Amino acid sequence: MVGDGEAETGPLATSWHSNKFLNPARDGAVLPILHLNGYKIANPTVLARLPQEELESLFVGYGYKPYFVEGSDPETMHLLMAETLDAITAEIKAIQQEARSHGYQQRRQWPMIILRSPKGWTGPQEVDGKQMEGSWRSHQVPLAEMASNPEHIQLLEDWMKSYHPETLFDQNGKLIPELAELAPKGDRRMGANPHANGGLLLKDLELPDFREYAVEVTAPGTAIAESTRVLGQFLRDVMQQNQENRNFRVMSPDENNSNRLNSVLEVTNRVSTAEILATDDHIDPEGRVMEVLSEHMCQGWLEGYLLTGRHGFFSCYEAFIHIVDSMFNQHAKWLESCIDIPWRRSIASLNYLLTSHVWRQDHNGFSHQDPGFLDVVTNKKAKVVRVYLPPDANTLLSVADHCLRSRQYVNVIVAGKQPELQWLDMDAAIKHCTTGLGIWEWASNDKGSEPDVVMACAGDVPTLETLAAVDFLRCHLPEIKIRVVNVVDLMTLQPRSEHPHGLSDVDFDSIFTTDKPIIFAFHGYPWLIHRLTYRRTNHSNLHVRGYKEEGTTTTPFDMVVINDLDRFHLANDAIDRLPKFRNSGAYVKQLIRDKWVEHRQYIVTVGKDLPEVEDWKWGYYNHSAPKTPSSVSANSQDKPSSPSVEGAEGSARSDA
Amino acid sequence: MVGDGEAETGPLATSWHSNKFLNPARDGAVLPILHLNGYKIANPTVLARLPQEELESLFVGYGYKPYFVEGSDPETMHLLMAETLDAITAEIKAIQQEARSHGYQQRRQWPMIILRSPKGWTGPQEVDGKQMEGSWRSHQVPLAEMASNPEHIQLLEDWMKSYHPETLFDQNGKLIPELAELAPKGDRRMGANPHANGGLLLKDLELPDFREYAVEVTAPGTAIAESTRVLGQFLRDVMQQNQENRNFRVMSPDENNSNRLNSVLEVTNRVSTAEILATDDHIDPEGRVMEVLSEHMCQGWLEGYLLTGRHGFFSCYEAFIHIVDSMFNQHAKWLESCIDIPWRRSIASLNYLLTSHVWRQDHNGFSHQDPGFLDVVTNKKAKVVRVYLPPDANTLLSVADHCLRSRQYVNVIVAGKQPELQWLDMDAAIKHCTTGLGIWEWASNDKGSEPDVVMACAGDVPTLETLAAVDFLRCHLPEIKIRVVNVVDLMTLQPRSEHPHGLSDVDFDSIFTTDKPIIFAFHGYPWLIHRLTYRRTNHSNLHVRGYKEEGTTTTPFDMVVINDLDRFHLANDAIDRLPKFRNSGAYVKQLIRDKWVEHRQYIVTVGKDLPEVEDWKWGYYNHSAPKTPSSVSANSQDKPSSPSVEGAEGSARSDA
Repeated sequence: MVGDGEAETGPLATSWHSNKFLNPARDGAVLPILHLNGYKIANPTVLARLPQEELESLFVGYGYKPYFVEGSDPETMHLLMAETLDAITAEIKAIQQEARSHGYQQRRQWPMIILRSPKGWTGPQEVDGKQMEGSWRSHQVPLAEMASNPEHIQLLEDWMKSYHPETLFDQNGKLIPELAELAPKGDRRMGANPHANGGLLLKDLELPDFREYAVEVTAPGTAIAESTRVLGQFLRDVMQQNQENRNFRVMSPDENNSNRLNSVLEVTNRVSTAEILATDDHIDPEGRVMEVLSEHMCQGWLEGYLLTGRHGFFSCYEAFIHIVDSMFNQHAKWLESCIDIPWRRSIASLNYLLTSHVWRQDHNGFSHQDPGFLDVVTNKKAKVVRVYLPPDANTLLSVADHCLRSRQYVNVIVAGKQPELQWLDMDAAIKHCTTGLGIWEWASNDKGSEPDVVMACAGDVPTLETLAAVDFLRCHLPEIKIRVVNVVDLMTLQPRSEHPHGLSDVDFDSIFTTDKPIIFAFHGYPWLIHRLTYRRTNHSNLHVRGYKEEGTTTTPFDMVVINDLDRFHLANDAIDRLPKFRNSGAYVKQLIRDKWVEHRQYIVTVGKDLPEVEDWKWGYYNHSAPKTPSSVSANSQDKPSSPSVEGAEGSARSDA
Repeated sequence: MVGDGEAETGPLATSWHSNKFLNPARDGAVLPILHLNGYKIANPTVLARLPQEELESLFVGYGYKPYFVEGSDPETMHLLMAETLDAITAEIKAIQQEARSHGYQQRRQWPMIILRSPKGWTGPQEVDGKQMEGSWRSHQVPLAEMASNPEHIQLLEDWMKSYHPETLFDQNGKLIPELAELAPKGDRRMGANPHANGGLLLKDLELPDFREYAVEVTAPGTAIAESTRVLGQFLRDVMQQNQENRNFRVMSPDENNSNRLNSVLEVTNRVSTAEILATDDHIDPEGRVMEVLSEHMCQGWLEGYLLTGRHGFFSCYEAFIHIVDSMFNQHAKWLESCIDIPWRRSIASLNYLLTSHVWRQDHNGFSHQDPGFLDVVTNKKAKVVRVYLPPDANTLLSVADHCLRSRQYVNVIVAGKQPELQWLDMDAAIKHCTTGLGIWEWASNDKGSEPDVVMACAGDVPTLETLAAVDFLRCHLPEIKIRVVNVVDLMTLQPRSEHPHGLSDVDFDSIFTTDKPIIFAFHGYPWLIHRLTYRRTNHSNLHVRGYKEEGTTTTPFDMVVINDLDRFHLANDAIDRLPKFRNSGAYVKQLIRDKWVEHRQYIVTVGKDLPEVEDWKWGYYNHSAPKTPSSVSANSQDKPSSPSVEGAEGSARSDA
């Protein structure tokens, strides 16, 4: 049932085209009833004021065969509606029958109903001398001042009596049996229909072992991979293994391949029941990848799919997921509300992959840069939202597996699609993701002593810049003691009292210290980190860098430079907060200023990033400045179980 | 020009109906060209794959007369396009001529063009054996690897030469004069058209003196008014005074009256060029109030209106403004980008009034509660965003006047529409709004000494609860010294280095102290206040209450109780942070716990709020508990210029 008010909204206006994605051979049917009662709160509706020919033309244009049910006499209307429904049911069955017997051949005009009836139908005709039925006045409260206006009381009584309750209820006020008998039984009752309580129908996904898709990482920060492309291979097999159960779909606003999830198309196609041409790529009426250039439709389809007991995965350019902020809000509120309803069974989580993110919009630029969906998401109740920022492919696999198994959440995963350095092998990735945040020992050199500074990071590009900053600092100020902390699960930063994933204060203080400076490189707007951590002991020493709405079409490294998130800014921030390097640090700060100038000149002249930036791998600086004693090897030898940093240096060497 | 990819988006799908709001007698014309080149990044487009009859039917249904320009031979297509444009121009002129000569009579079918041409038209036919022209492959980079693939170089050369540059440029590479001559001159050039640089056309609004609409406030917290209704009277006269200049419109998603801006309809109507019935209320083709149930359309209309040099005002339910988050983002980014372009003239600010807000959703409930648009807005650059939370009608008037005069900002005003207590007379309101935040001396009793606690507030309901808490505390703990601070301009909280409205640290420390507890009652999600103030000296003593996503359909006071923002929670929070009341406060804390129980029982039994809550006015507790010495009067006598608190007590008495 679509009201003619809500039919004016954009998301609804485009969603009529969903019939080009519905395959009668395998999918259910939708019977849209556009209810033209003519008015919103205060205005007539747009569709109700179209001439009949235009209205019919519009819905024919949307691909439907409209049936008009119009009038105001209840008896006549009930009969007309019943006849129409009978005719339409037969027509839908014929469409399905044809497709199911002979295979899907071509898109048919699906029937729909345009129901035109008076607003406030069968309510009071007139109140206080003003037209009520058939006018916008019946939108909310037709009769007010019931305590003080006896005329209104009389109108109410007349109105109620007009339904002849004496013919509907017995003397005890109970519905008479012959009417009660008319209601459907059991699961056919609207409220008991299992599709309205999708958790009843939910089957666990058959998931392949995500560890089998691991990127080999023999040493951190040497191998390169496109993290979302690796995820695509996992999703391909998730799709494959659940084809038979027909309960997994992937949604995207025309970005499945742009987001590097191409592999999924090896086992299924994009769905379309519209005309398909020979030049089209991986499109057929049987596909389970749903692509349309409308984030609203993707979101709406996915919500419906989850609410009826299935599973899905929605990949989207990060900046444009804001398009569905309001729909996300309502879904999250629905989830929040359901937790306390005992008969409602949990449904699968709504999983977002946000990629093509703020830091790598190479040719798109400023309009495509907005990491603020996380701020919207974290406004909703902790019990229904989760945010993950896996820094590489193996952590992304681990997180995605977790999200696909979860229930009743909105999971937001932010991960890059560009080729990028890989940090953790699969064992380390699983441990790291399970904890949600942790010290990266192989990158730290404070073990057994006090750190001078904690360098923290969340997100793939901030992780890269932080590690490069650490490498740089340890090369140029070898006596510095640095602890590197990476955060995958953003909710660990909050106090446990605020979020179930929150780290205890004891653990937080142990990891972030209670008195050392923390330089935090964050993927999103920096204040989100302050907002999550302001109650933590060491908050006053926390210094966050992130996106501060500086952007243009430029090189990847320049993007971090103009937002003060680059390795040199992070190194500079650390030196500024360490009194013991006040004097010795001056030369390094001078070097950093030179680097910025060098960078600017190079990108303007050459049009790409400095070789020092493009070629950087873990250990680059400590290798390339052999005169400076490096403490890396010594430290890594303490922990034979972690990936070898020696190897990292070796690789950096052969690459330089 | 509408691409067939973007035509799939919801906002665009509904915006075709804008023709029902366009009056050819006074407005300009729009000639939409739907460009079907058939493909998006990777997929065919929905509209390009409709059968011709459906496509035509769709646009006839949208109210247009579609002209098809289809083909792939450039010569033929150029001629066809030119002929079509000639025909259409004549048709548009005829429509305008008719309406301008005889007055607007009825909606005509406006012409539009459906241009069907190959994607990558006149580009390479085939690259690496794959079809390029006429396929999705030509969406981005038709020829890559230019440095390493000589075959691609050859293709590029062939492609470029196919345009016969030797016939277009002379030997010096200059465009030949007969072609250069074809370009329009002066303002007729697309880039020099003043409508594309709307600031050139912008005229200041004629504004009435907002002080003339002042609500009389003889004593704070006694008079009742609906703040947005008062604003409506001001907007009515803004509309009136600029009718002749025809450069002011009001937009709303069917909520102008619901948001209590009814007075505007005394001087103009809602615009509609669709069918109008006798029962319709204040609707005609000449109206300047634009209402449609689509926040997207309101936003789009307003952006276009501002960008072409006019002024506007957009009122919206607070929770649903999230629908346009993404559009707001792009407009803000556009404003940011324009600041550095010297030839771009400033345009009028985009003014939002968010009302029907989170705290008063009496019969709507949880789905209508979301104050998070402020979090989205404050992510954008400080130089283009402003946020105001006027606590009453006079401050709202002062803020609205300021916003309507401003340029190149997005102004967000949050204000309630329900009857509520009024605090400041007009003189005090102007001073308060000009500073942006300030101590309310009449409510404070710490003058001449140190406060024990700072009670701060931003937003109308939080201000009410804070003042009631102060009244309650001063009644039950008369020796307590409280400073009341109200914040209208949220940006004053930020450091001056972050926002031009930011208070200097010296002033901030002076007002909020450097060491006293601050209880901050905030309209929105509480962490926004932390995010804005985390660098301030006294941040560690800041305790913020706000909306924490607890909501349902309940009484107004219960809404603040379930979010811990009510007067009793605020009082309790203060006592908890004041060691000197650790013992004496126990009885008050006991009383508070009793109040919560009393409240819960009362609303469940009676269905409305406690008389103590409904009847509360400033001084209620200090009056109703005469045995407790009150320090209110003594304090107020220090400041004869501020509104009399004696009067407030007097009124409360007569009301009790």
